[in-house]
Amino acid sequence: MVEVRVDDNDDQERPVGIHGGNIYRLAEDLGIKEDEIADFSASINPLGVPGSVLSEIKNNMKRLCNYPDPDANKLRAAISKHIGADPESIICGNGSTELIYLIIRALKPEKVLIPAPTFSEYERALNDPQKVRCLVLWETNGFEINPDKFISAMSGNDSSASYKTSLTTSVDMAFLCNPNNPTGRLLPRASVIKIADAARDLKCYLVVDEAFIDFSPGDSVVKEVENNPYLIVLRSMTKFYALTGLRVGYGVVPPTILDTIKKYKEPWTVNTLAQMSGIAVLNDITYRDETYKFIRYEKKTLEDGFKLLNIQFYPSAANYYLIKLIHAQRIMASLREKGILLRDCSDFIGLDGTYIRVAVKSNKDNMRLLKELAQWLRA
Amino acid sequence: MVEVRVDDNDDQERPVGIHGGNIYRLAEDLGIKEDEIADFSASINPLGVPGSVLSEIKNNMKRLCNYPDPDANKLRAAISKHIGADPESIICGNGSTELIYLIIRALKPEKVLIPAPTFSEYERALNDPQKVRCLVLWETNGFEINPDKFISAMSGNDSSASYKTSLTTSVDMAFLCNPNNPTGRLLPRASVIKIADAARDLKCYLVVDEAFIDFSPGDSVVKEVENNPYLIVLRSMTKFYALTGLRVGYGVVPPTILDTIKKYKEPWTVNTLAQMSGIAVLNDITYRDETYKFIRYEKKTLEDGFKLLNIQFYPSAANYYLIKLIHAQRIMASLREKGILLRDCSDFIGLDGTYIRVAVKSNKDNMRLLKELAQWLRA
Repeated sequence: MVEVRVDDNDDQERPVGIHGGNIYRLAEDLGIKEDEIADFSASINPLGVPGSVLSEIKNNMKRLCNYPDPDANKLRAAISKHIGADPESIICGNGSTELIYLIIRALKPEKVLIPAPTFSEYERALNDPQKVRCLVLWETNGFEINPDKFISAMSGNDSSASYKTSLTTSVDMAFLCNPNNPTGRLLPRASVIKIADAARDLKCYLVVDEAFIDFSPGDSVVKEVENNPYLIVLRSMTKFYALTGLRVGYGVVPPTILDTIKKYKEPWTVNTLAQMSGIAVLNDITYRDETYKFIRYEKKTLEDGFKLLNIQFYPSAANYYLIKLIHAQRIMASLREKGILLRDCSDFIGLDGTYIRVAVKSNKDNMRLLKELAQWLRA
Repeated sequence: MVEVRVDDNDDQERPVGIHGGNIYRLAEDLGIKEDEIADFSASINPLGVPGSVLSEIKNNMKRLCNYPDPDANKLRAAISKHIGADPESIICGNGSTELIYLIIRALKPEKVLIPAPTFSEYERALNDPQKVRCLVLWETNGFEINPDKFISAMSGNDSSASYKTSLTTSVDMAFLCNPNNPTGRLLPRASVIKIADAARDLKCYLVVDEAFIDFSPGDSVVKEVENNPYLIVLRSMTKFYALTGLRVGYGVVPPTILDTIKKYKEPWTVNTLAQMSGIAVLNDITYRDETYKFIRYEKKTLEDGFKLLNIQFYPSAANYYLIKLIHAQRIMASLREKGILLRDCSDFIGLDGTYIRVAVKSNKDNMRLLKELAQWLRA
């Protein structure tokens, strides 16, 4: 069985830059309010915006007439305390998405390893299919990332690279989304460190996107950055803390590239309320604890339902599941009419129209979805 | 008299990317709260955040758990109605600053005309001094921009280009900040149209940055974009509407380059509250009318004061003044200790350490500044 296909670029015409969470188009199409949509297409904490953030916004909104702190000093200090990294190594962004673009613009990689399926903005930010080396993850393997195959693909010595035989040069950057989006599969910390060590030996920048790692914090490699000049870790505050509409994320980068990154950073991208809210959520232990409990419980709701309905899903370390359904397209279209938005995964490399990403939402929403799916599957 | 110097690049070492409005560093240095600073260094509407925006934020902050509309459709519709341009031609940004970077990234100009002094982010976004052709504006001329000289400099046929004689090639992009920052000087609409027509003939993109044009709305050329495939107009909502901390601006671009620009646009850069607040302020006629009255009155306060104190200033169409003072550096340092922040203009090409930009603020603040200046000048 060939488990890994390494592809120097993807010849297929695919739409790039499609995302979940566009409730605005659906609301317009159906003539309803955005709030009436059950949005399973964006993987946001169903507890909603933390109360600590709502207070912070109310108390500070009059200060919006001032520029945001361009260096986000107070937020960086709070993050530093939270993750135990040097504040100087932290860069804040308009969501972690800004930082994906920034890193590529600053470091100008020539050849980049990107697993497939994964978050599409890595490829879009590169903006040149010739620069992409695609590491295909196989369904037969549950879309798991094998660290040895990842390292082989980085180094260009992958013996299982059956697709093209000319891939003998190493890449100079690799993206690793952990847990992976849209599969939810997690690489344990030790495996990521193994990959990061190999990246250092290869002088290849490894960008570990930990946008959903808060659901499995023990597997973060954020503290390894100080020991590895080729490791960059990105973190988001928009998913776990439901600050999606406000936009805030950060990156931890080694000191060797800090000046280069700062040179390319655009000013004032992180608005004042985002900075203040970022500080508030890091101190909001209650919200964090409740989230863990809530998500654990509701993941069980969905998993039990999927099993009961014989729906194929993959083990997930995040707050979403990739599921596989034969009539996925028809089901999504039908549920869309009812105001239920799902993430069609057919635009991900390596996935076809039978894959759907489902966010973990409130019990009411999750049960509603399961009932709708049950109706379809019984019909 | 040589009024215009055209310079292919600026050999001098200058700091780039310094801005006003960094109240955070001063507050830290003095051990006071940011609110206690009289910030004359950022040119923001002294009426503060509009009440309509505060209500909008309060009513919608719970919706921050959703992604912002990546296309900002409702905001673009509101802008379209306000300025009378096709919504399809409007692109929203994280302040107009995002759009400066985006345009350069998308259109990849080889040689760019930038007046001096002017807003420093054009040069920083280019990130290559070799690409800059600098059109020096002279103090003897009150820093006025002469449309004919601007056109000559764009075309590379400027007979007064005494500085270097080899400048015979035309540029492929030009920035025109109108009113200009930090001088406040305004080119009337007819002159800008004349320059835009010439840009079209030269196939040179003219980017007119109208960040402060709301103070002189009749001189905007935003409606000309539909007739000129080489004209791009940028507008800010952070200054006139005091949404500085929230970040929102827009660009009006010709249909010929729309797809290219969209291809390079990063997703979700305009947060949800910024989009909603943008719509709110465009409908807030009361705030707009009060601003005109207030600014007119307080400009008179400052102008009268400057005249009384024999301080040299330049006619301004915006909510700030460039002033010239022999002991500017000592005065700024002394006022800084008292929590009064002024914009040192020595990092602008063409200005030395005797220039200060002063924002128009509340009567109380303006009078305080004038009194402090009076003390210095009498001493």
